[in-house]
Amino acid sequence: MKLFQKEIRLREKRRGFHLITHEIIHAFPEIAQLNAGMCQVFIQHTSASLTINENADPTVRKDFEMYFNKSVPENDPDYEHDYEGSDDMPAHLKASLLGSSVMIPVKNGRFAFGTWQGIYLCEHRDAGGPRSLILTAWGS
Amino acid sequence: MKLFQKEIRLREKRRGFHLITHEIIHAFPEIAQLNAGMCQVFIQHTSASLTINENADPTVRKDFEMYFNKSVPENDPDYEHDYEGSDDMPAHLKASLLGSSVMIPVKNGRFAFGTWQGIYLCEHRDAGGPRSLILTAWGS
Amino acid sequence: MKLFQKEIRLREKRRGFHLITHEIIHAFPEIAQLNAGMCQVFIQHTSASLTINENADPTVRKDFEMYFNKSVPENDPDYEHDYEGSDDMPAHLKASLLGSSVMIPVKNGRFAFGTWQGIYLCEHRDAGGPRSLILTAWGS
Repeated sequence: MKLFQKEIRLREKRRGFHLITHEIIHAFPEIAQLNAGMCQVFIQHTSASLTINENADPTVRKDFEMYFNKSVPENDPDYEHDYEGSDDMPAHLKASLLGSSVMIPVKNGRFAFGTWQGIYLCEHRDAGGPRSLILTAWGS
Repeated sequence: MKLFQKEIRLREKRRGFHLITHEIIHAFPEIAQLNAGMCQVFIQHTSASLTINENADPTVRKDFEMYFNKSVPENDPDYEHDYEGSDDMPAHLKASLLGSSVMIPVKNGRFAFGTWQGIYLCEHRDAGGPRSLILTAWGS
Repeated sequence: MKLFQKEIRLREKRRGFHLITHEIIHAFPEIAQLNAGMCQVFIQHTSASLTINENADPTVRKDFEMYFNKSVPENDPDYEHDYEGSDDMPAHLKASLLGSSVMIPVKNGRFAFGTWQGIYLCEHRDAGGPRSLILTAWGS
């Protein structure tokens, strides 16, 4: 059983949903050493998140941003936590709805994704800055 | 430390929430070899998902379908991605709200579920077809 | 590769979102033996959940409770499952929106959290009772 772990930093991305599969693969060539195993991608923030979804048509990512903005409105007068602006509390809520990590099986040295699957970085802040991820993989 | 991994294919299920705990257990007898460990069930699709919820009353699963249809409406004129019909974009959104994998602790060769827990396959398409899962378990 | 697993029971908490990071760390000192690895916290219930979010300002947790109550309303006449009262079906739905487990990378014997991250126990019932968790950690 082997285990690999590393931290990476993603350059600031604008608010919205971004496909980062290739960035992750590029940053973590150790995956190739696993015949069978698992990889976790973890984000060390509470106003951005990670999810797995369609890797092809960019309108899917635009519709994600549209849907989550409708579903988690800004400026709800019932929010008490708004120190950092109208995108502050909605960002925390979206982050928990989507989750702070994704777990991908590894098979024959590669992510065992279906044809249409990719990893999204979900940036919920207007100016979230760079984002730190921890990549961990284990297996045989 | 042992690690087991296999792919299985679930027959097409109608749109809705389906209890698949027994199908998973039946497909993965290797779990019995682990005194303590972990099992991941991963779905290789972006329009169906997996979650853990109540394993008894079928009305819970009906209410899940009702709730998610209200919460993620079809035919929102703001959707840009609608190539495959009105259930297309809502299926992607529901898949990310619920998630593409579940992680279950293994104890004494069995899933360490609470009394009322089971695994749901959440089929978000009207005609999603068969669904491929990857089962991975590790432990000692 | 080492693997540790234990069950813990959290005292009943009132409905809402509760920071439990210190309870988990206190209950699981074995984490300190891992240079690099992973920890899962799993809840054995379907009407309470776990998530990772902001560990500082308590109004974030209040706003979580407010948001999820609006987003998953009680007394929707379309619910069929309401045996245990108006908080019954909403609790199941919230549990799946947030998830039954969190996965935290371990580095140098500690959770590799970002500065603002903590673990929330999300109690969705008015009288949920004590809650059982399974803690599993593995690594080298």
